[in-house]
Amino acid sequence: MTVYLTRRLTFNAAHKLWVSEWSEERNLATFGKCANKNWHGHNYQLFVTVKGQPDPLTGFVMDAKELKDIVEKEITNVLDHSNLNLDVPFLPKGMQPTTENLAIVIWQQLLPFIKGCQLHCIKLTETENIFAEYYGE
Amino acid sequence: MTVYLTRRLTFNAAHKLWVSEWSEERNLATFGKCANKNWHGHNYQLFVTVKGQPDPLTGFVMDAKELKDIVEKEITNVLDHSNLNLDVPFLPKGMQPTTENLAIVIWQQLLPFIKGCQLHCIKLTETENIFAEYYGE
Amino acid sequence: MTVYLTRRLTFNAAHKLWVSEWSEERNLATFGKCANKNWHGHNYQLFVTVKGQPDPLTGFVMDAKELKDIVEKEITNVLDHSNLNLDVPFLPKGMQPTTENLAIVIWQQLLPFIKGCQLHCIKLTETENIFAEYYGE
Amino acid sequence: MTVYLTRRLTFNAAHKLWVSEWSEERNLATFGKCANKNWHGHNYQLFVTVKGQPDPLTGFVMDAKELKDIVEKEITNVLDHSNLNLDVPFLPKGMQPTTENLAIVIWQQLLPFIKGCQLHCIKLTETENIFAEYYGE
Amino acid sequence: MTVYLTRRLTFNAAHKLWVSEWSEERNLATFGKCANKNWHGHNYQLFVTVKGQPDPLTGFVMDAKELKDIVEKEITNVLDHSNLNLDVPFLPKGMQPTTENLAIVIWQQLLPFIKGCQLHCIKLTETENIFAEYYGE
Amino acid sequence: MTVYLTRRLTFNAAHKLWVSEWSEERNLATFGKCANKNWHGHNYQLFVTVKGQPDPLTGFVMDAKELKDIVEKEITNVLDHSNLNLDVPFLPKGMQPTTENLAIVIWQQLLPFIKGCQLHCIKLTETENIFAEYYGE
Repeated sequence: MTVYLTRRLTFNAAHKLWVSEWSEERNLATFGKCANKNWHGHNYQLFVTVKGQPDPLTGFVMDAKELKDIVEKEITNVLDHSNLNLDVPFLPKGMQPTTENLAIVIWQQLLPFIKGCQLHCIKLTETENIFAEYYGE
Repeated sequence: MTVYLTRRLTFNAAHKLWVSEWSEERNLATFGKCANKNWHGHNYQLFVTVKGQPDPLTGFVMDAKELKDIVEKEITNVLDHSNLNLDVPFLPKGMQPTTENLAIVIWQQLLPFIKGCQLHCIKLTETENIFAEYYGE
Repeated sequence: MTVYLTRRLTFNAAHKLWVSEWSEERNLATFGKCANKNWHGHNYQLFVTVKGQPDPLTGFVMDAKELKDIVEKEITNVLDHSNLNLDVPFLPKGMQPTTENLAIVIWQQLLPFIKGCQLHCIKLTETENIFAEYYGE
Repeated sequence: MTVYLTRRLTFNAAHKLWVSEWSEERNLATFGKCANKNWHGHNYQLFVTVKGQPDPLTGFVMDAKELKDIVEKEITNVLDHSNLNLDVPFLPKGMQPTTENLAIVIWQQLLPFIKGCQLHCIKLTETENIFAEYYGE
Repeated sequence: MTVYLTRRLTFNAAHKLWVSEWSEERNLATFGKCANKNWHGHNYQLFVTVKGQPDPLTGFVMDAKELKDIVEKEITNVLDHSNLNLDVPFLPKGMQPTTENLAIVIWQQLLPFIKGCQLHCIKLTETENIFAEYYGE
Repeated sequence: MTVYLTRRLTFNAAHKLWVSEWSEERNLATFGKCANKNWHGHNYQLFVTVKGQPDPLTGFVMDAKELKDIVEKEITNVLDHSNLNLDVPFLPKGMQPTTENLAIVIWQQLLPFIKGCQLHCIKLTETENIFAEYYGE
């Protein structure tokens, strides 16, 4: 009996999309206003899903409070009120902070800390109209 | 051509998390304020997903009104304004009413009543930050 | 230049509606399933609105973080995971914990702690379909 | 590394459910008020999900702006403020405009225009309580 | 002590905007795609607000269940799955079914049925981006 | 018969809170992580409310499409994907881009363009937990 448990957390951050090897023209042609030089930002919603069997006594796949504490410590406390291009140690240099790439990096960063059940999905919403999901493969 | 059809229903209920074999201390250490003795409660949202082929004439995988009637009769009329620890006949004695366990029990209770298509998923949201999903295995 | 600033906080609690001077019959006739003896509960959303002039330097009517801290300390830490009929010191004995009465009592409890601007409105949502607002008079 | 990228778009349309080979009585018995002769309507939300590997330079599975432009041109500009029974060229004659069938038809209509990654899912919400998902098989 | 109590209800309906004294050209120039001849539709959300003093025993400004029953009987059962231009007896002939006019007409239709407290506001949302409010004057 | 009509628009922007006359220490003590030097950002929701009498023929207080066009041209096209501290011509130099101040400045910027009815309220939500409202006085 595998149950999927999801915890939502939020963070607010600045970013821009910019390939440093490209000219300003090519950046603006590719990324539009997402390449504006003085940054813009979003209220991100992060949904972390783990899967496993509920414990026969507690009924928990994982203690949702503990899951929240881990995600806050490892991910959202680092990302909240940050500049995703400049301030995030675990974002590889030069990697675009798109929703897609952020989902992958958050997965990789979080994976070692999920114990006793399995990390299943990282879903990240950038606006009410755009989100990305990554399942680890 | 398999389409997945989902119907949302809501119910409001009280519960607490408590292992009767444990001391009050261990319960509070494990469950925090979820173990408060006088109960607390939630506005639950239940998403029932069935899958199948749309009927060539009606275009229905299942009549959504009929699905709603079945879920109300078998599940939400029983759970709404109830105490999940004390009042629910189909919740096994001593089973913690966590979101995870509730999703499993709702699946088992609903399964015999879904005819002409297949039950696919029970998703239950406890707050805007926590939800569980169960796919029957 | 008067600006209205609103902070949302949430709490989850159990309650029931019951007039102790009345028979069970009359209670059930009046309150329906809201009078079920073993309680039910809700995810409440509390919107606290203050009004005033933004400070010329900080741009704050009130520091939203400070407003959050006050409301948490005085209100939501007390109400969260509580039984509103049994556990809340500032709810007068015998007062029904309806959304309407809760809004009034939260106003009265919070008023002495709002300094440097004015408390304007307490809005409390009980479900996605019901909410109450109180403006202090 | 496969990431799933989703774009939400909206459209507002009228429809009714009606099998022309059936009597009015049988239509009303089957579809209830959804068969009312003068139509009714909905605010639809369409979620289009594509999957693929993020581009190493841009970080895009697909440019979300380009995805939006394609879905608007091929789907929502056609469906918005339309009558789904009468006005939609790509809806087969006599096919019921249920959420299920609309999801299938939107998939088929959109598929040829998704290049460089794969169409993964069409999710269509009809109301806050009903939605359908189609994965192309 | 005046408290404002609000109940949300929903209905789904078709309409179009069209002045019969005008040419098709002028209608399309004025109303754009809202004038499309085969109708379109919306999921409306109706928020009915009443105000009054909570009853000392029940804590109710008005029984929210009773308020719901009245609004369903007098308003949403009539409007749900209807064509707002053709099917609504209480909408004056030739009156455009805009959100603004609907709010006024719903107020007038509901007013005689609110007893023991005062009708305060009719709020009607047409889409997630547009709503109208009417306070009776 | 005065009806209030509201249009929602969104924009995504970066900002920080920082008083240039103050030391870094005092800024961090006052604004916390909102003063982080490399900016952060938000998905803002802007609700513009106008009031007036519905036109007897069109049923419009104001054409909601026209209202949208004006707000886009004068406000959200300027603010979207901008840095609120650096890029906004109509934001007075040194004024903190708090939600409160932004609401005032948007009011002042928009007022001359609202014709045939009255601007009533600017509501700006910064996160799901914080919003400000300004009524012009």
